[in-house]
Amino acid sequence: MGGLSAGLLGVAASEVARAETLADVPDRAPGADLGAHSERSRFARLDRIPEATPGKRNIDPSDAINSKTPHQKLVGNITPTDLHYERSHSGVPDIDPAQHRLLVHGMVRKPLVFSVEDLKRMPSVTRIVFIECTGNGWENWKKADPDLTVQNTHGLVSTNEWTGVPLKFLIDLVAKDKGSTWMLAEGGDGAGVDRSIPLTDEIVNEAFVAYGQNGEPLRPAHGFPMRLVMPGFEGNLNIKWLRRLKFGNAPWMTRWETARYTQLLANGKARQFQLRMETNSVITQPSGMMQIQPGYNRISGLAWSGHGKIAKVEISTDGARTWKQAQLAQPVLSKAQVRFQMDWDWDGKPTRIVSRSTDEQGNAQPDRQTFIAAMGTNALFHYNAQQTWSIDEAGRVRNVLA
Amino acid sequence: MGGLSAGLLGVAASEVARAETLADVPDRAPGADLGAHSERSRFARLDRIPEATPGKRNIDPSDAINSKTPHQKLVGNITPTDLHYERSHSGVPDIDPAQHRLLVHGMVRKPLVFSVEDLKRMPSVTRIVFIECTGNGWENWKKADPDLTVQNTHGLVSTNEWTGVPLKFLIDLVAKDKGSTWMLAEGGDGAGVDRSIPLTDEIVNEAFVAYGQNGEPLRPAHGFPMRLVMPGFEGNLNIKWLRRLKFGNAPWMTRWETARYTQLLANGKARQFQLRMETNSVITQPSGMMQIQPGYNRISGLAWSGHGKIAKVEISTDGARTWKQAQLAQPVLSKAQVRFQMDWDWDGKPTRIVSRSTDEQGNAQPDRQTFIAAMGTNALFHYNAQQTWSIDEAGRVRNVLA
Repeated sequence: MGGLSAGLLGVAASEVARAETLADVPDRAPGADLGAHSERSRFARLDRIPEATPGKRNIDPSDAINSKTPHQKLVGNITPTDLHYERSHSGVPDIDPAQHRLLVHGMVRKPLVFSVEDLKRMPSVTRIVFIECTGNGWENWKKADPDLTVQNTHGLVSTNEWTGVPLKFLIDLVAKDKGSTWMLAEGGDGAGVDRSIPLTDEIVNEAFVAYGQNGEPLRPAHGFPMRLVMPGFEGNLNIKWLRRLKFGNAPWMTRWETARYTQLLANGKARQFQLRMETNSVITQPSGMMQIQPGYNRISGLAWSGHGKIAKVEISTDGARTWKQAQLAQPVLSKAQVRFQMDWDWDGKPTRIVSRSTDEQGNAQPDRQTFIAAMGTNALFHYNAQQTWSIDEAGRVRNVLA
Repeated sequence: MGGLSAGLLGVAASEVARAETLADVPDRAPGADLGAHSERSRFARLDRIPEATPGKRNIDPSDAINSKTPHQKLVGNITPTDLHYERSHSGVPDIDPAQHRLLVHGMVRKPLVFSVEDLKRMPSVTRIVFIECTGNGWENWKKADPDLTVQNTHGLVSTNEWTGVPLKFLIDLVAKDKGSTWMLAEGGDGAGVDRSIPLTDEIVNEAFVAYGQNGEPLRPAHGFPMRLVMPGFEGNLNIKWLRRLKFGNAPWMTRWETARYTQLLANGKARQFQLRMETNSVITQPSGMMQIQPGYNRISGLAWSGHGKIAKVEISTDGARTWKQAQLAQPVLSKAQVRFQMDWDWDGKPTRIVSRSTDEQGNAQPDRQTFIAAMGTNALFHYNAQQTWSIDEAGRVRNVLA
């Protein structure tokens, strides 16, 4: 990352205390014994927000049940494993990996059933990718709640390093029929979430059955012992607790792609199979419910696209009138969240800040008016309009629809 | 990653059970409520091994006290945050970030003292790098213990994503004297580990003061609330609980670079300031104390170099007579561990497997005889000889010196 301009460097330095000697620094202290795990500091409070309709247990398959990543407290690109967002339709099953199996059948010559150990002995791919719930951002579609944090508005997207067996390798093992153009993936949760996936070249080449997450076995909430990872596509296609892949030549029209996860458009028609996640970005620092001071401020956030790499992120600090290009953390990875940042000297006057991203294929994140004009207000999913935060004269940062 | 050869594909498939229907797969089950954190499965047992001389508490600064990463149970490139190796000379201090300060002084025009919040408001860099204890691998320097796991032999290196303020930015803020060519970095632990660091262009451009680790605040064992990250250099230079950077024009000759962390060579002379970590690799699967079966096996491991990117990893399955190039997980990052893998059809006969890496600057990992010939047997640090695992007719994998 480049340094500040000379002017901002002076602003930043002026806010730091001057000191000459160690008398200005707390003394050293001996510490606790080393252990088997490095636990979090008691001073670092990091929690997701589990959300469920009041009075309902977290196992109602038609209820909106999730637990959101606290992006306002995080740094870098990777999401801590225990804070990767959760979304479930029947809670988190407790699966014994020794008992679990993955059936791969349908239009194949050699139907097979795989154990976790079978998968671990096979060639693997390791890749850092974002996974995003298709409902991420829906809060700002319908109404303006000024008290939302970025955890509320954008907490249903996270980025981890995933490791597993390429789908293409399993396809070769079972000798898939060349006439098969669709695949059904089914989860081992009580709801049995299952989705039809078109076997495009991109999906065949990039999808994989993961058993590893940030270096360790998947966490139960994220699909232990195995899940599908579909870089760039709807979170609900990344089937957790994966128990079955079935090959066919047409979509199965499961309840998850008919009653659920369809888009009711402005004209009353419903759109099915809108599978790819859009070009998106959000400022996480400063963000909703924070308070800032006049003078030097660092603006930082995350950008991502289901189409590939982020090409640029622009930031406006004057309510989308003028824009400046932000710096991106290198290297920028395809279909992964990337941290962006920009220096800002706030003059203390009320204003609005907003980010917009563009990916390597030229897809640009729309402003909210353009987005609503195209999609209407009936739909629930794939909200990727620019996120605006207002800042008042007291430095209070609030969610606003622009 | 590419697929298997047709022959090995058949071998791999033959070891997987055939099945046609869901009757062969365990049934689905409802799950537990979602929570604020995604905890590990009760079936995933992952612990480091804390090591300390019996009868001593973990706070003796001259004792060998560390806690090692269980590489034999991990996948991918990134080490889980709570399993990143620990090495400490006086335990893990419990520091309140609101009280902690970093003094930057010495040959500078504007000595300053920084709080954690000061750092977080500044431009940041995010980078995935390995950190390696200079004593990693010493167990195999002196003697052959067949019962060591890869956690024992190579558990003092780990890879995380770190986020913090570039050293260069702090240098500009305090207006360092151009005549300053060395920097003292001092920790806030009881032992007050402090090291003299030469201000080469590489170090000035790459070092940073980190406050983030895998997306979250540093864990206390890894330097909370701030540490120095020195990509490619000895772990003990990556000063944890950082409380001071002092600029000067000569090394300070602290006890950590005179009594400790020097290399006693074969001729009786001691080498000081051997700071860069060497080109290295190790097979983690299969590795010490595992048992394998004849037939298809996947060989997998980790490679890294303090000089830059790994260019290639070669594997021998016949005791270093013939070598084949392994596949590397993409993208390969500079000064980060990278996962390598290769397919292998084991014929069931006793053999030895070994890996060797070469980095982009042409540095090749030496075999053990070459290494010992050059370094002798008096030294303790910077062991990077090739690691050989023997496999007997029963498939038992054991540590061996080759």
